[in-house]
Amino acid sequence: MKQNIYDDSTFANEYDTMRKEKKGTNANDIIEIPNFRKMVPDVNGKSILDLGCGYGENDKYYKEKGATYVLGIDISKHMIDEANKENKVPGVDFDVLPMEEISTLDKKFDIVISSLAFHYIKDFDKLVKDIYDLLNKDGYLIFSQEHPLITCFNPVENMKKSHIEVDGKYYGVFSDYNRNGERKKDWFDKQVIKYHRSFAYIVNTLIKAGFTIEEISEPVPSEDGIKANPKYINQFDRPYFLIIRVRK
Amino acid sequence: MKQNIYDDSTFANEYDTMRKEKKGTNANDIIEIPNFRKMVPDVNGKSILDLGCGYGENDKYYKEKGATYVLGIDISKHMIDEANKENKVPGVDFDVLPMEEISTLDKKFDIVISSLAFHYIKDFDKLVKDIYDLLNKDGYLIFSQEHPLITCFNPVENMKKSHIEVDGKYYGVFSDYNRNGERKKDWFDKQVIKYHRSFAYIVNTLIKAGFTIEEISEPVPSEDGIKANPKYINQFDRPYFLIIRVRK
Repeated sequence: MKQNIYDDSTFANEYDTMRKEKKGTNANDIIEIPNFRKMVPDVNGKSILDLGCGYGENDKYYKEKGATYVLGIDISKHMIDEANKENKVPGVDFDVLPMEEISTLDKKFDIVISSLAFHYIKDFDKLVKDIYDLLNKDGYLIFSQEHPLITCFNPVENMKKSHIEVDGKYYGVFSDYNRNGERKKDWFDKQVIKYHRSFAYIVNTLIKAGFTIEEISEPVPSEDGIKANPKYINQFDRPYFLIIRVRK
Repeated sequence: MKQNIYDDSTFANEYDTMRKEKKGTNANDIIEIPNFRKMVPDVNGKSILDLGCGYGENDKYYKEKGATYVLGIDISKHMIDEANKENKVPGVDFDVLPMEEISTLDKKFDIVISSLAFHYIKDFDKLVKDIYDLLNKDGYLIFSQEHPLITCFNPVENMKKSHIEVDGKYYGVFSDYNRNGERKKDWFDKQVIKYHRSFAYIVNTLIKAGFTIEEISEPVPSEDGIKANPKYINQFDRPYFLIIRVRK
């Protein structure tokens, strides 16, 4: 079953608050967004498909950077409503569509992007093949996800968080790294299902589908980012995110 | 300065004991060697250079698998002496040479292999470029090293080991993952210097040198391997090794 937590109203409220009221100090704004954008090639004259577009910020951004057309899709009607309110500009469309169903789209794209959504997807192999088929020749896929060192962790009673402090030093804690599959995580008031895949599994799946690996990032914040939220110095100890650019 | 711990007689004795008296139950035999060999393409009719060849087991093995010529080099005279005693066969040569100096070699190779040695090398960028230059067109590099989740760890007084147990469950513990560089580790009676590089750094360096990433492994033991040494079930929680195959 496809998971659609962002249409749960309590969850959506909490998420909206985190992203909007903490704008500029959350991990998305400080770590993920700037590093993701560094990995995206020149979009001038290119068509873009955004999988799990959320609020659609990236879609408006890349349209303004010269993309000819951007289609943002998301499983959540709440997110697409927000995207239409906030980031709808000419040449950008938003549609409610789970990324598990992109093979139903009737056009091809030069660039596929996806920000922090793939860890919700059960069948990564199928998704990667579908993206490959949707891309024009020499097309790019750039995606970010929670880092495998985060996704692997199974919270249990006496080890609820995937980090500890010893003598003031931050340590990541992990287990089950080479056991791919479902993980149940608490996020706000909900239990969210995410899928763990090891680094090797992710990279090998992309290669087997026909992609060439171009660049990998386990991003850290800039100096300004650390000033905005000093706790993210912890990204030097343990990255939250993984960003990958591959080419067809 | 190039590090040559294997010519320290106390260290060498301990290492020889670990590898030989525990043959069949150590991590090399159960995890690294079988998974490394799975990653090496057909060597029939190919020339091979082995960087940090140690006892030279791989060199004899690949000669017997049909390689035309195998050169094993190692910084340690002790290791090369052992290799000449144990694994010298026609078509296999062993030489004392640090891998930092392979650009002095006057021939090219079809395949470069290296097992568990790159984490001793300070300048990975130069090494990768030197290997690229030494390879014939379409040549392969296959190397294993300690996994970045192991190499990153800086042992300190109250956190000496990079794993903990909580309620009988094995957890890897890590820090400083995104701080590449030197680490001092205790091994037998010696302090050994190893170099940590993040996964992204390793992969990006290979790509920038011109290589194409073909396959990555974070290996686990086979069922027989776990029977031989049940503790290595922990590889499903935290891999010790990283193995990468790239192509020129």
